[in-house]
Amino acid sequence: MALIVQKFGGSSVADAEGIKRVAARIAETKRAGHDVVVIVSAMGDTTDDLIDLANEITRTPPAREMDILLTAGERISMALLAMAVNDLGVEAHAYTGRQAGLMTDDRYGKASILGVVPERILRTIQSNAVAIVAGFQGVNVHNDVTTLGRGGSDTTAVAFAAALHADVCEIYTDVDGVFSADPRIVPAARQLKIMTYEETLELAAHGAKVLHLRAVEFARKFGVAIHVRSSFSHQEGTWIVSDHLSEQKAMEAPVIAGVAHDRSQAKISVSGVPDIPGAASKIFATVSAVDGNIDMIVQNTSISNPGRSTISFTVPQEQLTEVVDALEAKKEEIGFVSIRISEQIGILSVVGAGMRSHTGVSAKLFETLASLGLNIDIISTSEIRISVVLPPESLDEAARAVHTAFGLDADTEAIVYGGTGR
Amino acid sequence: MALIVQKFGGSSVADAEGIKRVAARIAETKRAGHDVVVIVSAMGDTTDDLIDLANEITRTPPAREMDILLTAGERISMALLAMAVNDLGVEAHAYTGRQAGLMTDDRYGKASILGVVPERILRTIQSNAVAIVAGFQGVNVHNDVTTLGRGGSDTTAVAFAAALHADVCEIYTDVDGVFSADPRIVPAARQLKIMTYEETLELAAHGAKVLHLRAVEFARKFGVAIHVRSSFSHQEGTWIVSDHLSEQKAMEAPVIAGVAHDRSQAKISVSGVPDIPGAASKIFATVSAVDGNIDMIVQNTSISNPGRSTISFTVPQEQLTEVVDALEAKKEEIGFVSIRISEQIGILSVVGAGMRSHTGVSAKLFETLASLGLNIDIISTSEIRISVVLPPESLDEAARAVHTAFGLDADTEAIVYGGTGR
Repeated sequence: MALIVQKFGGSSVADAEGIKRVAARIAETKRAGHDVVVIVSAMGDTTDDLIDLANEITRTPPAREMDILLTAGERISMALLAMAVNDLGVEAHAYTGRQAGLMTDDRYGKASILGVVPERILRTIQSNAVAIVAGFQGVNVHNDVTTLGRGGSDTTAVAFAAALHADVCEIYTDVDGVFSADPRIVPAARQLKIMTYEETLELAAHGAKVLHLRAVEFARKFGVAIHVRSSFSHQEGTWIVSDHLSEQKAMEAPVIAGVAHDRSQAKISVSGVPDIPGAASKIFATVSAVDGNIDMIVQNTSISNPGRSTISFTVPQEQLTEVVDALEAKKEEIGFVSIRISEQIGILSVVGAGMRSHTGVSAKLFETLASLGLNIDIISTSEIRISVVLPPESLDEAARAVHTAFGLDADTEAIVYGGTGR
Repeated sequence: MALIVQKFGGSSVADAEGIKRVAARIAETKRAGHDVVVIVSAMGDTTDDLIDLANEITRTPPAREMDILLTAGERISMALLAMAVNDLGVEAHAYTGRQAGLMTDDRYGKASILGVVPERILRTIQSNAVAIVAGFQGVNVHNDVTTLGRGGSDTTAVAFAAALHADVCEIYTDVDGVFSADPRIVPAARQLKIMTYEETLELAAHGAKVLHLRAVEFARKFGVAIHVRSSFSHQEGTWIVSDHLSEQKAMEAPVIAGVAHDRSQAKISVSGVPDIPGAASKIFATVSAVDGNIDMIVQNTSISNPGRSTISFTVPQEQLTEVVDALEAKKEEIGFVSIRISEQIGILSVVGAGMRSHTGVSAKLFETLASLGLNIDIISTSEIRISVVLPPESLDEAARAVHTAFGLDADTEAIVYGGTGR
């Protein structure tokens, strides 16, 4: 008998039929003899509909009231799901974040979890019932409801799995698990059986739609085993575990776990920067002052223009205007000559814990890209990742070629479903 | 400067436009220098939509989870209304029933108010902000949300008005106030300026769509002055106050406050009942055992059948089958001969605190009905009410004639709007 935390996203509970299907899965797990704690998101588009309603009322909703509004979504889905599970003859009780004991700070809309005091959840489990908990929400010291922001429901699930010392945190989605690449671009993508927290973090941070970074970081911190799987089938999905466990379980795993692509970044090149100490730091201080989120950086010293260099870096597209404006405002102080921007760039990343012990990964990557006639613009690396900036129109072709070159291609094509909900 | 509790029903906040209109009214009251506490219902049909959703899931929803589900409606409306008031430059904060301190017993779906501890509401008022409180909901000792059932939002408003010692509890609706009769049936109905709690209770209990009995009883108990008025205009509505205040304010008030009609009752006549002590009590014990709600009773001793009598009484139509079945099951024990039913009857009631000091009311009523050639079937009276059972098809005509006979007709026709929400 295990203690299992199951998290179901908005697309899994989008309508009465979906709620009943999820309830059947929960009842089945409970009947198999396990203790079950369920985290559920709002139904389908409920949260977006509520945001639209707020926008009809005001352009500047107070953050506290916005969180009160948005948490109505999980309130509805958790109540309906509890009803559906009870209807199958399995006792289940629904709890808000507050009732379940999820304590947060008071940053409405993006609250951080301070702790979980799952007293009622433990009592529910001990009475042999299923606990259904609203994802995405908690309570602050003022006794007011807060929302956790992006990835909040996944993070809620991992937090409860950690607090309850659960055996596994199952994240249900509408795909079979995590893939070695986006199957819509790389049809030969294979489902990964196991991956490390670090691999998952690197893939998620570089464009792969896996789990939210925040949930994975939480899982790594508390050693929560995550199982990403489909709510439509019973087959094994993808396990996300510690490096240590991963190696034990998959001695023969490929060096590269997966290939991620990202089209959401823009590039800013600041040229004619005086080649003196402190010039670069002035640029990055300026970007940082407007919360610009820099991913990759490269500095080139120009031969034709000695004493001056070009500093290029990437930022999310939605921050482009603000960052450029901030830099232009400090043009004289920094002393650069001009700014050039690429509104969209492509970033291709290969990620794998095996890189630590295997050499030749970068050589094979550059060789593959060269064979496609692609120029690499910027390169950045971590211990288990290599990322390169490419022309966005070549990104798909490059992803397929690299995927093949690293021996990741599956024998059959992956089946592609829709989105994955919050 | 007064402390004003304002309650807005679901039809007043049915959409963004309605919410903004209500917000403007609140802001205006606040800017006039008053302290304002607002009670708000769920938007339009939200509650019915949530009930439909639950019905799609199960025919037997757990009561606790049903209340969690339904309270999502007020959560949404209170958050949006607070946003709208803030948008007008008046600080406002939204509170759930729990946050506002409304404590109830744990009868989910029909909870009774145990008390109000309006600490946060008082702090909000003291900080010069408007408090917006979810109607219809509270919290029980288990820290679980409960709903108050029918009339819950009106009752919430009166409860907060009592707890806060408010100067007035304004109940906003889509009509101008309480009328001397239903204007859809009696076009000459006049808006009442003032009425007593007792008159309101008698009218509401006998078919008039005024306030919910429960809210009026609460107001009477705690001496809360109610002002029923339109959210579409600024004119004075109807004040509901104590007998004492009512007499002071309206020395010249007519004897009769209003005429109510009711088509929701059925009549059961049990004939051939042995004319011995205890026979009637056996009948009413049987009806009571199935929670039958008897309003009017008459007993006739038959001349043609000595030693036997006929006992007739009224019950709500939806209880008819159950009550008749219960009686038939005890036919031998009670000893009656047969049961005759009228599936629909009409009940006309005239109500007025002036009856206490004026004679001749019943004479005038019967004279008027006789002039229409109407036979009166059953009669019942209270200190301030006379009700008669009439053929349902004659009810409208009788209501108009009685309204005229008691001098209640207005000079102009009343304007009729739609329903009034929860």
